[in-house]
Amino acid sequence: MTPEDRAAIGARRPPWRTGRRSTVRRLPERAAYDRETVEAILDEGFVCHVAFSTEEGPVVLPTAYARVGEVLYLHGAAANHALRTIGGGIPICLAVTLVDGLVLARSAFHHSVNYRSVVVYGHAEEVRDPVEKRAALDAVVDQIVPGRVADARGPSDSELRATRVVRVTIDEASAKCRAGGPKDDAEDVEQGGIWAGHLPLTVVPGTPVPDDPRGERLAVPGYVVRTQRPGR
Amino acid sequence: MTPEDRAAIGARRPPWRTGRRSTVRRLPERAAYDRETVEAILDEGFVCHVAFSTEEGPVVLPTAYARVGEVLYLHGAAANHALRTIGGGIPICLAVTLVDGLVLARSAFHHSVNYRSVVVYGHAEEVRDPVEKRAALDAVVDQIVPGRVADARGPSDSELRATRVVRVTIDEASAKCRAGGPKDDAEDVEQGGIWAGHLPLTVVPGTPVPDDPRGERLAVPGYVVRTQRPGR
Repeated sequence: MTPEDRAAIGARRPPWRTGRRSTVRRLPERAAYDRETVEAILDEGFVCHVAFSTEEGPVVLPTAYARVGEVLYLHGAAANHALRTIGGGIPICLAVTLVDGLVLARSAFHHSVNYRSVVVYGHAEEVRDPVEKRAALDAVVDQIVPGRVADARGPSDSELRATRVVRVTIDEASAKCRAGGPKDDAEDVEQGGIWAGHLPLTVVPGTPVPDDPRGERLAVPGYVVRTQRPGR
Repeated sequence: MTPEDRAAIGARRPPWRTGRRSTVRRLPERAAYDRETVEAILDEGFVCHVAFSTEEGPVVLPTAYARVGEVLYLHGAAANHALRTIGGGIPICLAVTLVDGLVLARSAFHHSVNYRSVVVYGHAEEVRDPVEKRAALDAVVDQIVPGRVADARGPSDSELRATRVVRVTIDEASAKCRAGGPKDDAEDVEQGGIWAGHLPLTVVPGTPVPDDPRGERLAVPGYVVRTQRPGR
């Protein structure tokens, strides 16, 4: 799927809004509502945590996702209980969190984590149109490893039937980010004697492990070699 | 806080159970319910996604946590709306997810992510006892960087008042894990021609960045140098 295809699918949906729920109340200086910041975080991640309410209480589950323009797609087995539940159009909330580092202040109180996160309030709807369904599944594969979908064998009709896809309309979205070193009290800095600073954390890909029972020894594709997270 | 202290605090709480909600229905072969697996995942992570229901719908937020024996602690500013809400004892659901790699199958259908995750169903209660509150905050610092709490300046009385801590009782918990390479259909393996395999992902600490406005040039503590995630 080309970027134009992704944008075209997304263009069907209304734009994002920010409301009372998505307005960051704690440490509002860490909040961001602009599309660029929100989309950059959604595009760098590939696992979200999606929450929905049931009669027995709230449920939150990790799952892969793809952003295509204005919407997010989630997928799973056709019998997947959570997807079936949220596909019915109930309100959902979804978070994507990228952890960038650990912040060690002089005081325990000012310890923190550097992160970039997006919280989305929205609602989901099952995708039944096979064209949109295939495009969404392509997008999920490409969200995980950009470029992969061109090489992989696409879904057969029975695989497509065995898969449930839901389209998440973003009703509200906001980002919250923290970066940099500790913000200690002046007295603690004056006092001195305690090492303080921050430790960047990066997700680093290891050596690709081929699955090659027939001894084909195919070359590792460039998009696998280049896969870097975050900031791929 | 010593491991014995952590265990002693935890021992006040009832043991975990597994119920209908926490029984993994999709791909049950990936599920684990034993304490060792669940606790190892909870101990390796330090950011969870906690979900709760409101009149307006579900909410999920990323936050730091600590496991102390049988319970989890969350903390935030005293005015923190989410913590105040869940501290009232409503049901919550919380997930900790460690992403271990990307799985590239020959078919788009069998693409996957290697991960270890725990989903906890529980309820929270505000911690008002200052001894437990201090111990919980110590545990949160040590969950992020084990060993750090011994060096950091502990919370003053006013910092303690400015902080809200909730204790999460784990009513049900389960783990779900995937590891290893793709599970392609035999026909796709026979067909050949498409590189398949998996790419391990590791969280790697970078160079510590000191916060040293006074030019003290203190040595980087060993627990910072040694911090490795996952599998620290």
